Amino acid sequence: MKKIAIDAMGGENAPKAIIDAVLKAKPKLKDIEFILFGDAEKINQLIPNEQKERIEVVATSEVIVDSDEPVRAIRRKKDSSMVVAANYVKAGKADALFSLGNTGALLACGIFIIGRIKGVERPALMPTLPSAKSEQGFNIIDVGANAQSKPEYLVQWAQMANFYAQKVRNIQNPTVALLNNGAEDDKGDPLHQEAYKLLKETKLNFIGNVEGNDLMEGKADVIVTDGFTGNATLKAIEGTASVILRLLKDSLLNNGLRPKVGALLAKPGLTALKKRFDTARYGGAVLLGVNAPVVKTHGRSNIRPIYYTLLQIDKMLSQDLVGEYKKYFSESR
Amino acid sequence: MKKIAIDAMGGENAPKAIIDAVLKAKPKLKDIEFILFGDAEKINQLIPNEQKERIEVVATSEVIVDSDEPVRAIRRKKDSSMVVAANYVKAGKADALFSLGNTGALLACGIFIIGRIKGVERPALMPTLPSAKSEQGFNIIDVGANAQSKPEYLVQWAQMANFYAQKVRNIQNPTVALLNNGAEDDKGDPLHQEAYKLLKETKLNFIGNVEGNDLMEGKADVIVTDGFTGNATLKAIEGTASVILRLLKDSLLNNGLRPKVGALLAKPGLTALKKRFDTARYGGAVLLGVNAPVVKTHGRSNIRPIYYTLLQIDKMLSQDLVGEYKKYFSESR
Repeated sequence: MKKIAIDAMGGENAPKAIIDAVLKAKPKLKDIEFILFGDAEKINQLIPNEQKERIEVVATSEVIVDSDEPVRAIRRKKDSSMVVAANYVKAGKADALFSLGNTGALLACGIFIIGRIKGVERPALMPTLPSAKSEQGFNIIDVGANAQSKPEYLVQWAQMANFYAQKVRNIQNPTVALLNNGAEDDKGDPLHQEAYKLLKETKLNFIGNVEGNDLMEGKADVIVTDGFTGNATLKAIEGTASVILRLLKDSLLNNGLRPKVGALLAKPGLTALKKRFDTARYGGAVLLGVNAPVVKTHGRSNIRPIYYTLLQIDKMLSQDLVGEYKKYFSESR
Repeated sequence: MKKIAIDAMGGENAPKAIIDAVLKAKPKLKDIEFILFGDAEKINQLIPNEQKERIEVVATSEVIVDSDEPVRAIRRKKDSSMVVAANYVKAGKADALFSLGNTGALLACGIFIIGRIKGVERPALMPTLPSAKSEQGFNIIDVGANAQSKPEYLVQWAQMANFYAQKVRNIQNPTVALLNNGAEDDKGDPLHQEAYKLLKETKLNFIGNVEGNDLMEGKADVIVTDGFTGNATLKAIEGTASVILRLLKDSLLNNGLRPKVGALLAKPGLTALKKRFDTARYGGAVLLGVNAPVVKTHGRSNIRPIYYTLLQIDKMLSQDLVGEYKKYFSESR
């Protein structure tokens, strides 16, 4: 029986959406125990009596909010749902940490409380994004756990993301590419030139450099990038998609009856598009390189993405991803 | 009479689209002479006899193609349309350089042949992109002329882009923001932390840090970024927009009659969206910081974006943008 420590107070729809997702996932995840941290009274009210099996509730008195400065928050809010959950993982009383709350604070919990895997220089954050090529999407690492990066970090991130793509996404021999400012071998600043050389020397299925416009096309299963560029790029992708889809919706709904009828008729045709951009199925962004799966989902998530993130965490646990990392990085030293 | 040196051989639709755009722009730009560089026979055939006024054709025997290594190409292909055009500008026989060809080679022409403005540390490339907020869009500098950047470069780029937004886009007091990995003052790596401090000390209307998802929202009129991040971000935006719009079109056209009829009905509603993303109106990407306007438009451009780029160059010339830069950077030293 593996245990997932869940910050039940993070995100806009907490704790209800989180508890509903747990109740939905529980019959499917028969080997998982769910530990919910937060306002015990509220949480218990939301769990029907006949459903309490394999759900533990741990009362905490504080909540880390989005406006909190991450490192200060985890130091000062000792009895917050997120910090207590992280301490459960640290103490071996839980096997994974999941939150919809303050991303920086969650990263800090992962790095400072749960701790780095020995041999990993810097943990890094990795979401799975949709692509035009396949419904499997692609992974991109690091999207912002590190403001400054070194070539060796990028190689370790590529290794970890490669394992993830194999074990969790079931991709046999994932293609790995370096996000750079051009496709040619010698492109980039010294950081990316050196990372290219090091990646070339690994056993990874490294296909070379890709550019920003290649990402959504699905040119590679795993994209490795420094945390600063990765952060700007991820947010640019999200922002662009969000603006276009919003303007599209506005255009169809606020221009009289004809476009509205048109949109209604076009709807079945849009299902495929919608499915391709249904990122909920991918679960959350994972902090790789720490001693347990630490996973973050968008604060505005409703039940569905939370449900899929629970399945994703279950898969990481059943595949013993962290065990694989520990083995790999102890051997490679 | 100002003269625009035009590489008539660059891009997929050369030379016809370029010449057609010149013929379209000529009646509007009465104080401009157009010098077309390339295959003189082909070019002359495309210009009706009664239209030859204010159009000069300069025969060149070589063409720089996209696969050419930029710096080597401008050294070896001495009689290429792009290099000869650049030399005209250098010699004072033309006032601006325009090409749809190899971007790297055009940047090299700007930097090595036309030359830096005294006091400018590094020239930088700046397109105008659409935003959700206004049809004016926003400028982003640098999108890839520099793989490595220093804080002082970013400040100069912000100054130049600010002038451009005022003089060419008619924005009174442009808002300027730094692309960073978070909104807070102290975010970023040392490069961006230092750039933030320096920008804060200028007289620019600096509104602080923005993140990748703020760009398309139109949070600022001018975004300043290091050339590596700017390159990845610009391409990520372009790639995301292109993938979504392509999948949208596919979804509507390849799912039977109903979505097709729907799309037809919805069309008028989509006009506003299309207009917002009609980047042709903005003209091309400008290399700022060299001794003349050097402008690049997408290689696949048809007449319309080329036409608007000619208007853009005319505006830069009539506003004496380069003169302003020269004055500013000689005084600020």
